[in-house]
Amino acid sequence: MKNTFFSRLAPKESKFYPLLDQLSETLVKAADTLVSSLPKSTPEEREETYRKIKDLEHEGDKLSQKILDELSSTFITPFDREDIHDLASSLDDVIDGINSCAERISLYNPRPISNSGRTIGDLIRQGANCLNRAVHELDRFRDKPKTLRECCVELHDIETQADIVYALFIKQLFEEEKDAIEIVKIKDIMETLEETTDAVDHVGKLLANLIVKYA
Amino acid sequence: MKNTFFSRLAPKESKFYPLLDQLSETLVKAADTLVSSLPKSTPEEREETYRKIKDLEHEGDKLSQKILDELSSTFITPFDREDIHDLASSLDDVIDGINSCAERISLYNPRPISNSGRTIGDLIRQGANCLNRAVHELDRFRDKPKTLRECCVELHDIETQADIVYALFIKQLFEEEKDAIEIVKIKDIMETLEETTDAVDHVGKLLANLIVKYA
Amino acid sequence: MKNTFFSRLAPKESKFYPLLDQLSETLVKAADTLVSSLPKSTPEEREETYRKIKDLEHEGDKLSQKILDELSSTFITPFDREDIHDLASSLDDVIDGINSCAERISLYNPRPISNSGRTIGDLIRQGANCLNRAVHELDRFRDKPKTLRECCVELHDIETQADIVYALFIKQLFEEEKDAIEIVKIKDIMETLEETTDAVDHVGKLLANLIVKYA
Repeated sequence: MKNTFFSRLAPKESKFYPLLDQLSETLVKAADTLVSSLPKSTPEEREETYRKIKDLEHEGDKLSQKILDELSSTFITPFDREDIHDLASSLDDVIDGINSCAERISLYNPRPISNSGRTIGDLIRQGANCLNRAVHELDRFRDKPKTLRECCVELHDIETQADIVYALFIKQLFEEEKDAIEIVKIKDIMETLEETTDAVDHVGKLLANLIVKYA
Repeated sequence: MKNTFFSRLAPKESKFYPLLDQLSETLVKAADTLVSSLPKSTPEEREETYRKIKDLEHEGDKLSQKILDELSSTFITPFDREDIHDLASSLDDVIDGINSCAERISLYNPRPISNSGRTIGDLIRQGANCLNRAVHELDRFRDKPKTLRECCVELHDIETQADIVYALFIKQLFEEEKDAIEIVKIKDIMETLEETTDAVDHVGKLLANLIVKYA
Repeated sequence: MKNTFFSRLAPKESKFYPLLDQLSETLVKAADTLVSSLPKSTPEEREETYRKIKDLEHEGDKLSQKILDELSSTFITPFDREDIHDLASSLDDVIDGINSCAERISLYNPRPISNSGRTIGDLIRQGANCLNRAVHELDRFRDKPKTLRECCVELHDIETQADIVYALFIKQLFEEEKDAIEIVKIKDIMETLEETTDAVDHVGKLLANLIVKYA
C-alpha cells in the first residue's frame, strides 16, 4: 500500500473484515487439528500434530501482525483502532493456547489423553466455530446484534462447562493418581486446555463490549 | 438508562463511585472468606469455601462488566475512561486471585495450610481492606491526596512482606519436603497466594498513577 | 518539574530517551549477572545472584515508574503516550523475567543448570544487548529505520532459537529424568528462562510497530 495522502484518507473498512475472517479460519483449523489429534498417543503422531499446529500459529501471528500494521497506517477504521487491535490479539491468543496444548502433549508425551481432556478439546473447537461465525457478523451487527449476542452467550457457556469438567478431573487426579511425574504432565496439559477456553470466553467479552458500544 | 442525546451528555460521575465501592466490598468479602477458611482442612469445608468465593467472583465479574458497560455508553466520566477501566479490571483481578487460591485448595486438597500460607492470606485481607478505603477516597483525593498516597505505600508493603514469607517458605519446602505430589500441590497454592498480593500491589500502582495524573 | 502552564506545554522529548536508555542498561546489567551466575551451583552463590538481580529489578521498577509519571504530567511526547508506556513496561517485563529466573534458581536450588539452560541465558543476554542498541536508535529511526528493523529481526530469531533449545531439552527431561522433584524444579526454571525470551521478542514486536507507525 502506498501511503499517499489520498490512500491514507480513503476508508479502509473493507480491509479488516477479510483479515479477521482469515484469522478466525486459521483458529478453526488449529482447533480441528487439536481435536482430531487427542485420541492419538504415539510420540510421532503427537510431534506431527504439534508441527501442524505450530505452522497455523505462525500463520495466525502473521495475520494479526498484518492487522496491526493496517491499523497503524490507516486513518479510518470501522471501529475504534483499539477495539480491532484487542479483537485480533485475543483471537490470536486462542490459537496460541491451542499451540501450547499441542506443544505440551508433544514434549511431555503423557499417557493417553483422558475423556475429560477430549471433552475440553471439543469445547475449544465449538468455541472456534462460534468465533468464526461471530467474526462474520461484524459488518452487520450494528443493525441486528441478535446473532452476535447469542455467540457471546455460547462462548461464555463453553468456558463454564470446561471449568466444571476440569475441576472434576483434577480433583479425581489428585485423589487417585500416585505417579508424581504423570501428575506434573497431566495437570499442566489440562490447565492449558482449560485456559484456552478462558481465552475463548475473553474474545466473547470483547465482542459483548462491541455490542454495548456500537449497536 | 435511555441513551437519549441529553442523558448521554449529562455527567454520570456519580455512577462509577458506587459501583467501584461495591466491587471493593465484594473483594473484602472474598478475602474474609478465604482467611477464615485457611485453618479448615476437610475436603467438605474446602469445597464449601470455594463455592462461596466463586459466587463472590461471579458478583465481581458482573460489577466490573457493569462498569465497562457504563463506560462504553457514557460521555463524561470523572477520570479518563481507560483509568476507570483499568481500576475495575485490576480490582477484579484480585478477586480472581482469591478465587484461584480457594479453587486450588479445594481441588488439590493438600495437607493443612502452613502458617506461611495463613500469613499471606492475612496480608491479602489487609490489602483488600486497604483497597476498600482507597476506593472510598476516589471522589476527594484531588484535593487531599494524602490518604490515598498512604494506601499505595501500604499496598506495596503488603506485596514486599508476602514476597519474603513466600521465599522463606518455598526454600524450606524444597529442602525438607520429600513427597513430590505434596510439593506440586503446595508450591502451586503458595504461588497463587503470592501472586494475589502482586495483584493487590498492581491496583496500588494504578492508584499512584491517578495521583500523579489528577491530584 | 514545576507544572506551570509553560513547562507543561514545552516539549519534553529529551526526558524519555535518557530514561529509556537507563532502563535498557539496567536490563543489560541484569542479563550479565544472570549469565555469569548460571555455572555457579552453591546455595550461597545462587542467593547472592538473586539479591543482586532483585536490586536491579527494583532499579528497573523505579525507572519505569519515573517514565510513567513523566508521561502523566507531560503534554508533548515524541511518540504517542501509549507507545512509550508499552515500551517501558515491556522492557521492565524482561527484567522481571530475569529476576524470576534468578529467584527460582535460588529458592529451588536444583542440580547444576544444564547447557541448554545456559544457552537460553546467553540468548537472553544477546537480546538485552540488542534491546539496548534498539533503544539508542529511537531518536533517529524515523529517518533511518534500517538498524532498528535489523534489531527486531534479531530479537525474533532469539526467541525462535530459545524455543528450539527449550523443546529439545524438555522432551529429553521427561524421557530420562526419574526424580519427580527435580523435574518440578527444572521444568519451572527452564519455562521461566524461555518465557523471558518471549518477553524479549515482545519488545521487538512493539519496536516493529513503531517503525510501521512513525518511520
